[in-house]
Amino acid sequence: MSLADRWLLPDGIAEILPAQAENIELLRRDLLNLYHRWGYDLVIPPVLEFTESLLTGLGSDLDLMTFKVTDQISGRTMGLRADITPQTARMDAHSFKRQGANRLCYAGHVVHTKPKSPLATRTPIQAGVELYGEADLSADIEVVSLLLESLSLAGVEQLNIDLGHVGIFRALAQATGLDQVQELALFELLQQKATSDIDQWVSGQIAQPDFAALIRALPKMCGGIDVLEQARAELSKFVPEALHAVDELSNLARVIGERYPKANLYFDLSELRGYHYHTGVVFAAFAPGFGDAIANGGRYDHIGEVFGRARPATGFAVDLGALNRLAARPSASGGGILAPEPTDAAGWAAVQALRTQGERVVCTLSEASLVRDELHCDRELVCENGQYLVKPICK
Amino acid sequence: MSLADRWLLPDGIAEILPAQAENIELLRRDLLNLYHRWGYDLVIPPVLEFTESLLTGLGSDLDLMTFKVTDQISGRTMGLRADITPQTARMDAHSFKRQGANRLCYAGHVVHTKPKSPLATRTPIQAGVELYGEADLSADIEVVSLLLESLSLAGVEQLNIDLGHVGIFRALAQATGLDQVQELALFELLQQKATSDIDQWVSGQIAQPDFAALIRALPKMCGGIDVLEQARAELSKFVPEALHAVDELSNLARVIGERYPKANLYFDLSELRGYHYHTGVVFAAFAPGFGDAIANGGRYDHIGEVFGRARPATGFAVDLGALNRLAARPSASGGGILAPEPTDAAGWAAVQALRTQGERVVCTLSEASLVRDELHCDRELVCENGQYLVKPICK
Repeated sequence: MSLADRWLLPDGIAEILPAQAENIELLRRDLLNLYHRWGYDLVIPPVLEFTESLLTGLGSDLDLMTFKVTDQISGRTMGLRADITPQTARMDAHSFKRQGANRLCYAGHVVHTKPKSPLATRTPIQAGVELYGEADLSADIEVVSLLLESLSLAGVEQLNIDLGHVGIFRALAQATGLDQVQELALFELLQQKATSDIDQWVSGQIAQPDFAALIRALPKMCGGIDVLEQARAELSKFVPEALHAVDELSNLARVIGERYPKANLYFDLSELRGYHYHTGVVFAAFAPGFGDAIANGGRYDHIGEVFGRARPATGFAVDLGALNRLAARPSASGGGILAPEPTDAAGWAAVQALRTQGERVVCTLSEASLVRDELHCDRELVCENGQYLVKPICK
Repeated sequence: MSLADRWLLPDGIAEILPAQAENIELLRRDLLNLYHRWGYDLVIPPVLEFTESLLTGLGSDLDLMTFKVTDQISGRTMGLRADITPQTARMDAHSFKRQGANRLCYAGHVVHTKPKSPLATRTPIQAGVELYGEADLSADIEVVSLLLESLSLAGVEQLNIDLGHVGIFRALAQATGLDQVQELALFELLQQKATSDIDQWVSGQIAQPDFAALIRALPKMCGGIDVLEQARAELSKFVPEALHAVDELSNLARVIGERYPKANLYFDLSELRGYHYHTGVVFAAFAPGFGDAIANGGRYDHIGEVFGRARPATGFAVDLGALNRLAARPSASGGGILAPEPTDAAGWAAVQALRTQGERVVCTLSEASLVRDELHCDRELVCENGQYLVKPICK
């Protein structure tokens, strides 16, 4: 084993050094405080558990993203969590006995076998909220509001939210009479936004011209709020079942627009992120110059069923590291006081009194180990005529 | 797959529910704030990295405690960290370019393949500090002081610290002329505190009566500060090399006694926790009624060598969950305000104003999902004659 092997970090796995770590920690605290003020209770799920719990329902998309290990105690397979939401779904179904709305929040590392996108980390820090037990759109409005509050609090200046609703595609697929194979094929083409491939697929598969036209139109239903009117007009005749979804998006957009007039809402009715488990509104937050979403969320009403308790659910997760890189927040580092080694009671008392006042006090331990420039101190504690005084460090 | 399988958590792996999670989060913040005030810089190492980095030096004891997975990108083996200290040692040697004293702190999950003791969790949350680059005893004094501050801050009333020094056994083994096999055998007997086995082993292996007597005496060198005088008297003639270690313990005990007169210091000169990597003072914190140590620490000067940069080092790690169970701190839960669903601008403004003041405000989303007793609210927001007022909830 060479020395360089021991130094090396795996590709896509990063350590976080002090300046950035301090900012991420403060952001984490601010977000958890925000979620607390909105009534979301903190939970700390374990970093690994049985794959049966992690990869059912919501987690089935995550199988290949999840590292597996054998539990020496039970002999069964455990997974390193690639997402925290399935854990909270299990907790809501089983660990909480709540009958009413259950608001949970969390923050912690997740681990991916492969980066989600070329530049993504494999060990993101995920923070988020989940609201269980409330089927009404008011719950989606609350979590989208809370996402916008999260972005504002982080100092993100341009609030860009993409909104979609999986109910529109679902209704269209059903009205067209697509079988499972067809639905999956079309779903995959829509995910890739491959317009010409979609045209070709529709020509080969869909005989009825009205439905063929609607499927071709779906990927073009994206843009500002007018998209909703366009969708309502086009869908009302042949897919009236989709109108409820369009109404939900309209109502959500109206309330969010009133509450957060600066937010840019972008609609994309063919956006099907998490289609396998989402059941309603889906949304994501984007920032200029940042390819990946900073946050993802949506409604996933049937997840609790796999844990034996069907509960409506909606929520979002935000990538704390990405949010911190975007954030226009003042840096956390605030200087400090360099103190001589406290060798007597008076010196120790002086140092401790400053710390009690909230000051950062770094003690010199020996002249050999003292490198002033590395300690980020802007003042020093000096003893003059038996009196301890804090003086600025003159450079 | 049965329903119960999906509910089940693996043995020794626990999720943390709101009341306890909130307290652990506050304790975590208080500890990290404390470490910041003492000049320790926060780092966030990744939750997994190559086993080459995790299991060298300090980590070699951890091999069987560490879950391994294959990195699909490099094909190499990665380990889920069972301890954070080896990561900080790598970071000090490689990621920091600091020449002087380098103070680091951290808090995060570690994962063990098996519980360290029958009742221990396999996913403890570890917080700690490491001080690199300072060989002087003043560094050990600083970290032991900081451990006592950590316990006080957590509300632990009885401060019990066990102190040892691996230099004493090391010098005795060398003076006696033990070979590697003998040293390991004796080390294991001492770890088990198996007095009669030690007697028997000494009779068979050690011809020289003075050294035989000293080895037999070592496990009895435990108790209050008088133990140090007894050790000095017994060791001075045949193992003068051990006296430096005894002096270090004396000096450490004197300063700690002055700074923290309420702390109970217990000396155990045959305590060899982490003997393979420790090089000086070793210490642990215990609490009444709690079998395992709440915190462990000590000096480990040669760790940096495996990463290509020899740096003296000392530090400790504390089990945040255990500390929280011991802590006599007031509960974090502080009630809240139940608000009607904010359907207009005035209602929304009233709710947001309260949150800005730091209040916890839980909005009713629908009557169906409202279960008042589950929401821990002691007041409610009511609208009377167009005015929003906060009123106590009468039970």
